[in-house]
Amino acid sequence: MELEIKNSDSFEQLNRKKAREDAMDRILSLKAESFPQSERVYLTMSDGTGVPFRQINLTGSNPSVMVYDTAGVYGDSGASLDLYSGLSPIREQWIKNREVEKVESLNKERSSFLKNKSGYTDLIYRAKTGKRITQLAYARAGIVTPEMEFVAIRESQKLSPEEQGEFSAEKIRQEVAAGRAIIPANINHLELEPMIIGSKFLVKVNSNIGNSSMSSSVEEEVEKLVWSVRWGADTVMDLSTGRNIHETREAIIRNSPVPIGTVPLYQALEKVNGIAENLSWDVFRETLIEQAEQGVDYFTIHAGLLKDFVPMAARRMTGIVSRGGSIVANWCMHHNQENFLYTHFREICEICASYDVALSLGDGLRPGSCYDANDEAQFAELKVLGELAKTAWEYDVQVMIEGPGHVPLDLIKVNMEQEIRDCYSAPFYTLGPVVTDIAPGYDHFTSGIGAAVIGWYGCAMLCYVTPKEHLGFPNREDVKQGMIAYKIAAHAADVAKHHPMAVIRDHAMSKARFEFRWLDQFALALDPYTAQRLYNESTPEECRNVDHFCSMCGPKFCSMRISRTIKEKYGREMGL
Amino acid sequence: MELEIKNSDSFEQLNRKKAREDAMDRILSLKAESFPQSERVYLTMSDGTGVPFRQINLTGSNPSVMVYDTAGVYGDSGASLDLYSGLSPIREQWIKNREVEKVESLNKERSSFLKNKSGYTDLIYRAKTGKRITQLAYARAGIVTPEMEFVAIRESQKLSPEEQGEFSAEKIRQEVAAGRAIIPANINHLELEPMIIGSKFLVKVNSNIGNSSMSSSVEEEVEKLVWSVRWGADTVMDLSTGRNIHETREAIIRNSPVPIGTVPLYQALEKVNGIAENLSWDVFRETLIEQAEQGVDYFTIHAGLLKDFVPMAARRMTGIVSRGGSIVANWCMHHNQENFLYTHFREICEICASYDVALSLGDGLRPGSCYDANDEAQFAELKVLGELAKTAWEYDVQVMIEGPGHVPLDLIKVNMEQEIRDCYSAPFYTLGPVVTDIAPGYDHFTSGIGAAVIGWYGCAMLCYVTPKEHLGFPNREDVKQGMIAYKIAAHAADVAKHHPMAVIRDHAMSKARFEFRWLDQFALALDPYTAQRLYNESTPEECRNVDHFCSMCGPKFCSMRISRTIKEKYGREMGL
Repeated sequence: MELEIKNSDSFEQLNRKKAREDAMDRILSLKAESFPQSERVYLTMSDGTGVPFRQINLTGSNPSVMVYDTAGVYGDSGASLDLYSGLSPIREQWIKNREVEKVESLNKERSSFLKNKSGYTDLIYRAKTGKRITQLAYARAGIVTPEMEFVAIRESQKLSPEEQGEFSAEKIRQEVAAGRAIIPANINHLELEPMIIGSKFLVKVNSNIGNSSMSSSVEEEVEKLVWSVRWGADTVMDLSTGRNIHETREAIIRNSPVPIGTVPLYQALEKVNGIAENLSWDVFRETLIEQAEQGVDYFTIHAGLLKDFVPMAARRMTGIVSRGGSIVANWCMHHNQENFLYTHFREICEICASYDVALSLGDGLRPGSCYDANDEAQFAELKVLGELAKTAWEYDVQVMIEGPGHVPLDLIKVNMEQEIRDCYSAPFYTLGPVVTDIAPGYDHFTSGIGAAVIGWYGCAMLCYVTPKEHLGFPNREDVKQGMIAYKIAAHAADVAKHHPMAVIRDHAMSKARFEFRWLDQFALALDPYTAQRLYNESTPEECRNVDHFCSMCGPKFCSMRISRTIKEKYGREMGL
Repeated sequence: MELEIKNSDSFEQLNRKKAREDAMDRILSLKAESFPQSERVYLTMSDGTGVPFRQINLTGSNPSVMVYDTAGVYGDSGASLDLYSGLSPIREQWIKNREVEKVESLNKERSSFLKNKSGYTDLIYRAKTGKRITQLAYARAGIVTPEMEFVAIRESQKLSPEEQGEFSAEKIRQEVAAGRAIIPANINHLELEPMIIGSKFLVKVNSNIGNSSMSSSVEEEVEKLVWSVRWGADTVMDLSTGRNIHETREAIIRNSPVPIGTVPLYQALEKVNGIAENLSWDVFRETLIEQAEQGVDYFTIHAGLLKDFVPMAARRMTGIVSRGGSIVANWCMHHNQENFLYTHFREICEICASYDVALSLGDGLRPGSCYDANDEAQFAELKVLGELAKTAWEYDVQVMIEGPGHVPLDLIKVNMEQEIRDCYSAPFYTLGPVVTDIAPGYDHFTSGIGAAVIGWYGCAMLCYVTPKEHLGFPNREDVKQGMIAYKIAAHAADVAKHHPMAVIRDHAMSKARFEFRWLDQFALALDPYTAQRLYNESTPEECRNVDHFCSMCGPKFCSMRISRTIKEKYGREMGL
């Protein structure tokens, strides 16, 4: 191992400095920016807080289209940015009104990145002793929190409760109370624009960022965060395993309008110098508190991987492919003891309850190949995750369940059905699934197929996969390609689920297409820049954006052009 | 219209010459080429003809993997190429043994591209009067043709009929006889390597090529053919609508190891100078014979679009989006007459029967937006297509049915079910379907999702869509991206359908992945070059292809590495 690390160091020396400097340049020159023909609008909550949307303005008398907007202040072209000071704490007043107290943080390490941040104290919020302050606790108590009201407007665009129907704040409360949806919102993540994860709502997409021992700096990770939310990431997981984990995470959370998730095991492992055998509950507990105090909104915890399941996984084609899962399995086998995340699960719940950190129960035994899909190891763990969900609910801790992985198309549905049954309808959060293993380099697509299908079946959040999956560490362009593929998958699922906000954009696009409103088509596109570029590539400059055909068929063979002519010429006799 | 054509001409002058010269350079320097670690192997038929496969040779003692290979001689690195003379007529002896005669071709226009072709005569094959020589006729008569034997080996890799089981030549015959599968194989396409289209077999992918009035030369189209089959196209449709249609098609067919499909209406329209109203049965009939004599393997005919359906389509969001459909609808409305393709359908069948041209019954009314999906226009036409299929079968003409288009995920299944019911299980051949309209620039992916799902439901062939769909004319890179997306979709469907040849490659990849055999992973990948490039992008040069991790997680966090260690260290006590 020593040799390999040296090898990678020499590689880093060649590449890291340049990458970091490039990221710094981009951060310094970053301007809040809307997409073409778009502007940020806010609908107003009862307390005056603005709920953000992107309004796509169309040409002529065509009505504008409002779309869900994850980009935070970065997508508001009127805003001024300073990433070195972080975002405004828009939730501060909401939190102050709760049964919380300000206490001294246990870990006083700052982030040198946040050099302009004013009023940076060592005090953080925590629930008063004996008080339940999670969204689930309030929901069960019949209380609609500001976060629920925010989410209700965000999912429906509608201002009055009457108009919202299925998406009223009261309906949101009911879904959270039932455990069918979660609003990950740590009371120390004051910069958060709340969002909801549940099968009745828009399908969400998570973007993974984070450095590894082999690459990337704080600057690059903050830039990946901004880049991810620009392309529609609903949550971002910081999976850093390299240098400066605490500092990187601090810079990310203070600049993030979306919930931040982590796998605390990674940092705990760094604390014991990467030697999995030396992990202990004490180190892990300290790490949980450190991260909860910073404002991490959800933790992935691999508590369902029991020692008895390891031999099942060892017989597989591809063993254990979850990083957390493999670390836990190694620990169990070395100590010949039950997984300490399982044995200490109630203490984990107590910590989460104090800060309203949601739990994402990790699937340490997800299959890593279509061959291993839906095997006994996977489903044995799923059953335990369901029992753990019930335990978490005792503490009013919000829970979602992580799922696979690699699953052929015909085996996806049973995953969703078993999850609903074994985990009592807690929201499902899957990585893909990849539906064939033969296309490395295109696994954003092989997994995007599975993601669309499981989203349609009811999966609440999809963890994106980039083209670099199985090959290496994703760069900026990989992140974008992964996000686009997954926004397509999530939106296809929303359309299939008939979410009222989803189809509006499709129909506006189709109408613009039939009317040859090229600029409107680009504005409505998930990626306006690529759509325009591909159009320009094959369209004569003097014809662009105006002519009633494209170079695909040319003027004589343009079916839409002919179709319009038929309507104009014979419309009357056809009774139109 | 006049002005627009002038505009496009000025654009062409800037770009066409260069594109043509580039294509000529590539054709001149084209060498038959295998993918990395691969070689062409042939399994032998009873008459000695070789059935091609690509054998992927893996490192160490790992068994090689045989995969279906559409690349023809272009993928056989031992072969010498001369595209200016065309491929060897491997089917000639088979055809000679049939009840056919050699007659003078009605159209003696050659292709200047085929300047080196020897023995080029004006004689073509045609069925003797009163004789039935189609694959369907032989299948119904209980005769296993060499094409059926070829296909049986191709779909199963197995040499002996006993080993082939579901894929024996006799089973192939039964599927063809029942109309559930077709073997498109014009008796004048002697260069063809036969393949089968049917729901029991590997899901096939079609690539569309062809020039438009706005771009491309004969050289570019031949190059797109070679490029398409290199990336796995099972059939290729020449949709040319521009200059030199006959000459381009001749160059394509003589160089094509895969079936060539066309939409004869496009050339017929060119013959009447693009004025749809001037189309007539006589011009169309002449075009059909001209193309059948050249060796076109299947015709798309929009005979199911009846005049009464036009008003249904006129009320849609996006009207008629099939080029052929819009031309036919315009003709019907102008003349106030029934679609001449419908009224002359029996004559069309007679022509097809004489050369064994299969019919692909076109869906002129496929929806062009998710909004229009599954509407009355679409399903009214589908019912007529079923009746036409029955008529074609009276003439022993093979038939497949074309399908949509744009369909949300939840509405796909009913398309497959209605097709099976209304069209008596004739093979379904769909374009996508696109499952959301909001991502122009990525429609190879929005439609690839729908294609994977409908392939799994039983669709026999998928017509690829490129990233340029809805935007412009695809170039070489677009063709490749479209093909890769659709090979993924088709393969995902094959895996879900448990086709015995499909899963082998997935499992070999998974095993190579777990064993860190990087070169084997690239060799097994659908696109070895992209997989290797992405790996290299983030892997230190001195670590490449050898180290037991990738830069995605780095050495300490590599789950597969840890997983292997667990197996090695604790395997014995786990009873492995």
